[in-house]
Amino acid sequence: MKKNLKFTVSYDGKKYFGWQTQSTKKTVQETIEKAISKAINIEVELVKIDASGRTDSGVHARGQVFSTHLPIKMPPEKFKLVLNRILPSDISIECIEEVSDDFHARYCAKSKTYSYSIYTGTRKDPFLGDYAWHVPHRICLKRMREACECLLGEHDFRSFMASGSGKTNTIRTIYEIAIKEDKCNDIIEITYIGSGFLYNMVRIMTALLIEVGQGRKSKEDVVRILNEKDRTFVPYTAPAQGLYLERVDYE
Amino acid sequence: MKKNLKFTVSYDGKKYFGWQTQSTKKTVQETIEKAISKAINIEVELVKIDASGRTDSGVHARGQVFSTHLPIKMPPEKFKLVLNRILPSDISIECIEEVSDDFHARYCAKSKTYSYSIYTGTRKDPFLGDYAWHVPHRICLKRMREACECLLGEHDFRSFMASGSGKTNTIRTIYEIAIKEDKCNDIIEITYIGSGFLYNMVRIMTALLIEVGQGRKSKEDVVRILNEKDRTFVPYTAPAQGLYLERVDYE
Repeated sequence: MKKNLKFTVSYDGKKYFGWQTQSTKKTVQETIEKAISKAINIEVELVKIDASGRTDSGVHARGQVFSTHLPIKMPPEKFKLVLNRILPSDISIECIEEVSDDFHARYCAKSKTYSYSIYTGTRKDPFLGDYAWHVPHRICLKRMREACECLLGEHDFRSFMASGSGKTNTIRTIYEIAIKEDKCNDIIEITYIGSGFLYNMVRIMTALLIEVGQGRKSKEDVVRILNEKDRTFVPYTAPAQGLYLERVDYE
Repeated sequence: MKKNLKFTVSYDGKKYFGWQTQSTKKTVQETIEKAISKAINIEVELVKIDASGRTDSGVHARGQVFSTHLPIKMPPEKFKLVLNRILPSDISIECIEEVSDDFHARYCAKSKTYSYSIYTGTRKDPFLGDYAWHVPHRICLKRMREACECLLGEHDFRSFMASGSGKTNTIRTIYEIAIKEDKCNDIIEITYIGSGFLYNMVRIMTALLIEVGQGRKSKEDVVRILNEKDRTFVPYTAPAQGLYLERVDYE
């Protein structure tokens, strides 16, 4: 008898070529599928896990969710311990729950929370290179917060989608954007909560907001760019290493 | 005209096979020598930097010091900016000073400070694997602090030297060992200040202190092991990733 299981997983993405399995490069999905295969002793070809969405090369997660049906007898808590022992130190299963048969990590997701970390110190910090975007300039949070307001609510976010991603429905809703500053460590963290995000949307919005914070773009530019519905109006994408998938919410 | 320069450098050691140049593997020394060669446009064979000491594969530094004589005209502050732009994000030159001709980073060092980070949380944290030793057990700091006292002062630390290192003078002085606990993040940090440390000495002492903290060894065992002057009495070495060279002091 197979059970449908919902997994919450955190990972440091720096050594992976993103979530999704590729033919030659090491990915998070493939690493987890191999660990499950080993833990319950079934062929790896029979293990297919479905995530809430992909994450790119170098992107981190504190609360990615995936689901899969497995012929498993041990209790979820035990399975979690076994898997964490098999998995490398940079991937951690945080939680495993048995869910109803129709649950699917991607199709049932109601909202997602991402955060983006920016290090603003003038000193080069060798320990932050894989975990934040280094922007050693003065950034005005007030300007950024004002610009954020224009992005809230339901919009066609076509201007903030990586070109070539091929999505046709580009309407999304952003519920909240919060900007926190850790002055001791020179870190700015932007948190985005939305119904879903287009490919690279968080990184493109972040790059534009940082332009606003530096005074190179205005709130009015953000409104204009949003209305243009054309990717070429934001010629920037913030780097992958500052991005964290914080959580995925379901009903 | 060559100038004698003293450099203070910090690095995240996770992607390097230690400090010292090897024939095939990427090291911190080689990476810095190449950057200097590029910055001042001289052949890399002519750049030889001398560090206060080696660090092993995976060991980090917040204040490693090295020195070298260079035919350089630009001011140290400018040279620092140029070098940091050439160096990868995980190596940062913190300071460059012009020093007297007889200064040598290794021979003139008077004391060194190392710290060692231990993560004691039961949760597997995927972001700490390269930066701390995971010991998910109850550790008694009082027992550890009492045991530390036996190690202070001048001793023959032969029992705490990696076998095969070939050093004949194994007498060192430890001035201070401090243990701090960050309860919010389940981190214990042990700081060691001494006249110098034998090969793997900090990692071997740390492994023994953790045994004491877990109740498997006593303060009396530490005294006995120190007096044995024989490496085989401590069959443990704490892993490299928790170790940080914090600073090197000169007269």
